[in-house]
Amino acid sequence: MIYLDNAASSWPKPPEVAEAMAECVNRFGANPGRGGHRLARQATEVVEETRQSLAGFFGIRDASHLFFVPSATYALNQAIQGTLRPGDHVVSSAWEHNAVARPLEALRQAGVIEVTWLPPHASLEGSRAWQEAILPSTRLLVATHASNVNGAIHPIEAIGQLARSRGIPLLVDVAQTAGILPIDVEAMGITMLAFPGHKGLMGPQGIGGLYVNPDHRLHPLIHGGTGNRSEELNPLQERPWSFEPGTLNTPGIAGLQAGIRFVEETGVENIHRREREWMDRLIEGLRGISGIRLFCADGESLPLLSFSVDGIDAQEVAVILDQHYDIAVRSGYHCAAMAHRSLKTENEGGTVRVSPGFFNTENDVDSLVKAVTEVVHAFQP
Amino acid sequence: MIYLDNAASSWPKPPEVAEAMAECVNRFGANPGRGGHRLARQATEVVEETRQSLAGFFGIRDASHLFFVPSATYALNQAIQGTLRPGDHVVSSAWEHNAVARPLEALRQAGVIEVTWLPPHASLEGSRAWQEAILPSTRLLVATHASNVNGAIHPIEAIGQLARSRGIPLLVDVAQTAGILPIDVEAMGITMLAFPGHKGLMGPQGIGGLYVNPDHRLHPLIHGGTGNRSEELNPLQERPWSFEPGTLNTPGIAGLQAGIRFVEETGVENIHRREREWMDRLIEGLRGISGIRLFCADGESLPLLSFSVDGIDAQEVAVILDQHYDIAVRSGYHCAAMAHRSLKTENEGGTVRVSPGFFNTENDVDSLVKAVTEVVHAFQP
Repeated sequence: MIYLDNAASSWPKPPEVAEAMAECVNRFGANPGRGGHRLARQATEVVEETRQSLAGFFGIRDASHLFFVPSATYALNQAIQGTLRPGDHVVSSAWEHNAVARPLEALRQAGVIEVTWLPPHASLEGSRAWQEAILPSTRLLVATHASNVNGAIHPIEAIGQLARSRGIPLLVDVAQTAGILPIDVEAMGITMLAFPGHKGLMGPQGIGGLYVNPDHRLHPLIHGGTGNRSEELNPLQERPWSFEPGTLNTPGIAGLQAGIRFVEETGVENIHRREREWMDRLIEGLRGISGIRLFCADGESLPLLSFSVDGIDAQEVAVILDQHYDIAVRSGYHCAAMAHRSLKTENEGGTVRVSPGFFNTENDVDSLVKAVTEVVHAFQP
Repeated sequence: MIYLDNAASSWPKPPEVAEAMAECVNRFGANPGRGGHRLARQATEVVEETRQSLAGFFGIRDASHLFFVPSATYALNQAIQGTLRPGDHVVSSAWEHNAVARPLEALRQAGVIEVTWLPPHASLEGSRAWQEAILPSTRLLVATHASNVNGAIHPIEAIGQLARSRGIPLLVDVAQTAGILPIDVEAMGITMLAFPGHKGLMGPQGIGGLYVNPDHRLHPLIHGGTGNRSEELNPLQERPWSFEPGTLNTPGIAGLQAGIRFVEETGVENIHRREREWMDRLIEGLRGISGIRLFCADGESLPLLSFSVDGIDAQEVAVILDQHYDIAVRSGYHCAAMAHRSLKTENEGGTVRVSPGFFNTENDVDSLVKAVTEVVHAFQP
């Protein structure tokens, strides 16, 4: 099996990830923060150590403003729904994943907020389009760090400077970039950062995080027990507990800790360099095939690209690659409907997305190019 | 280490739980429902098989109405916030955990809903008090299946009959009973069922579930990508996808599957019988110690009880048990503030809770009784 679907979930994971999870379940499976006995303290330790690691990783000064959540999707919903109030206006881009687009559209269609969706090219060219879209009622800017369709990178620093100068919070979705590009919330002017654990950070599925600037007021999406002050009926205000009600995913956090450790020891730059190598090889190979439309960003981009084949449905290409070549890629719209409308791929079943990862080899990339060449030739008249 | 804190999180887990999680991470760690390749299909299979197992376990006819969520706390928030609208009235009891009490109080304090909290004794005695509290605007009854403070069991069948006859949805929190008492949503008249995976079901932390009757309209709390129909910007309506946006906790689901399998193969009745044995032995032992106040339910109850010691703070008792005897229990309010007010234990730092599990032994229970006896004698003048 050649796995080239790392943008959906990185795989394989470093072996330490599953080991850390199993150790957590078997050796200190008790409930963190609930009761003062040894097992609960060991669980709490894993949680707090991982919080510190992540804070360091993203340039977060006070780790208590970083919350563990089940997914980037949850983090984005919490950030959006916990910030916006009736009458607010939001600026975002056509590159957003459904985890941003759908919560914003749900609020817009309910008549609660207004949204300006910037067209694909405009949103990528510095902060000008963002600036021009700001209204007196604008209360939030939401930008993906990089597209999950073609890997294009947004100018977050410029948008962050704009957000700071206008006093408008900036929410950044780093689902595709956490662990792959350097991220610093202070330097980049990011008010809220939403990330998954199971992609570039090499952790397991089921765990993610949300950072919220200490000065940003956010209403918790859910309430519950927090293990401290449980005698109070009123929901808690203190961070991080107010945003982490209920039992945390301790095994997931332990796995994420092992994932981040691997990324840090390997070095984000080294990971990125190797992935860039596969990308260059991939682009060169696929460009040589006639009848293929390639969607990849110019210049600096993520290790992912999409393509479509004239006259063949994207889904069909992916099925052939899976069944005849044992190569895993992804076909479809990649949860980014607006981007596809702009790429004009919505009538071809979207695109085939190829996303190599750190554990791929030169041979994996060459095998894909060879397979796609054969598929295209077989279908050509 | 003698672990007697199973009501917070069951421990140890059957060894198959961590094994299943590690296998999931290492062998088919791809994103379920995202792309048609083999690894993604294997992940989808684990998810759907577990959904079927759980549906069978709880008497749910159509498994697509059972959703995987990160925790029982999330399930309860989703059920409460997704059901209630401004002006609605809710009936619930003083036994509720903060995962019910706080979301309801947050809505009440915001002026959105009204809540009637039934006093402890009334709520347990059949459905009369529930019936008398119903108003024309009552849109939801919320009952815990059993208390996490003294193990008292609510008459869910009677409340379910009432709910059905009045056409009011009934939400039941089975955090303490799933895997420990038989539960059948049809026979018990339960409209929505919220459960954690990491307690009686023997699964890992970070995974839980929510069942919602097919006829009950519920608004999703969060929106995002679902892996199907990703070309649509409008949030999806179909269950279970509409309630499972984002990447699922596949390793957690795999671990839960192993946990349920263990529970089913062992038999809920056999588990309950053994735990009942430890309870009877525990009650007998603790009753013999003077200066102790015991809080345990009359008749049928869960395998958990609380106690307080005259003149010693509950927290202090728990710390001594942990540090001098290596026995893990829990002290405090157990996220059930109202129950403690009614037990009049709020000035003694709550209670010490002891909750044996299937893997405990006779010797564990005897060791606890001996340790508590020594502690009490040491403090007595």
